[in-house]
Amino acid sequence: AQLALERDYESQREYDTRYRVLTEATRDAFLFVGAKSGRVVDANPVACELLGVARNDLIGASVAHEFEGRRRVEFMEMLTQAATADETRPTELETRRTRQAVRLYATAFRAAGERLVLCRLDPVADGAQAGDEMN
Amino acid sequence: AQLALERDYESQREYDTRYRVLTEATRDAFLFVGAKSGRVVDANPVACELLGVARNDLIGASVAHEFEGRRRVEFMEMLTQAATADETRPTELETRRTRQAVRLYATAFRAAGERLVLCRLDPVADGAQAGDEMN
Repeated sequence: AQLALERDYESQREYDTRYRVLTEATRDAFLFVGAKSGRVVDANPVACELLGVARNDLIGASVAHEFEGRRRVEFMEMLTQAATADETRPTELETRRTRQAVRLYATAFRAAGERLVLCRLDPVADGAQAGDEMN
Repeated sequence: AQLALERDYESQREYDTRYRVLTEATRDAFLFVGAKSGRVVDANPVACELLGVARNDLIGASVAHEFEGRRRVEFMEMLTQAATADETRPTELETRRTRQAVRLYATAFRAAGERLVLCRLDPVADGAQAGDEMN
């Protein structure tokens, strides 16, 4: 059993590395957020640049703090709703530090007993804002 | 030691799940290829659509077979060179089944003792082909 566990462990380590390489190679901005804590679990380089913050300062911080005019509780409610509802429906937000309009696409999932939300942040080009998505 | 291994194993399982969710949420087309075998280890939904092939048929198949006019040996030489050289320099290719011009960006890495190449495939819009990248 020990041996089988170690073999399995090796193959899992491969996913760890694949995950890291993938986060760095994608051109999309991604945040992993704890569904309960509302804190950033991981962020890729594109997301850090879009939000205008270093990865070390972002990890462990409240995700709501990175966007304009949203209180933590309100933000997490929105995030949970977005993640559980039709995932093709984005939420329009503005980044706090870089004042960039973005569309947030959320996907909820469970990993190792913890509920996480993957957030993809798509920058909105000037003049291309979808009015029906604005609050 | 057994317990520590199991705890570690749990956290690795989390990366497994995060990896899977990320491959499905990104808008980029990604292939993981064995550097030695030249065979596709994994492909995300966007890559399958771009290449016009089901994931099950793609995994285990020779990656060279998915592109026009490239023999296996020649393709792997190109891939290894692209992955080890300046990764910002893409290779221009044409998909075999869908006849789509793409730029391939390769990143080489090692995971669980195996050398892998991550390939990002960016479709080239008509009329936007970079002449100096063509062979």
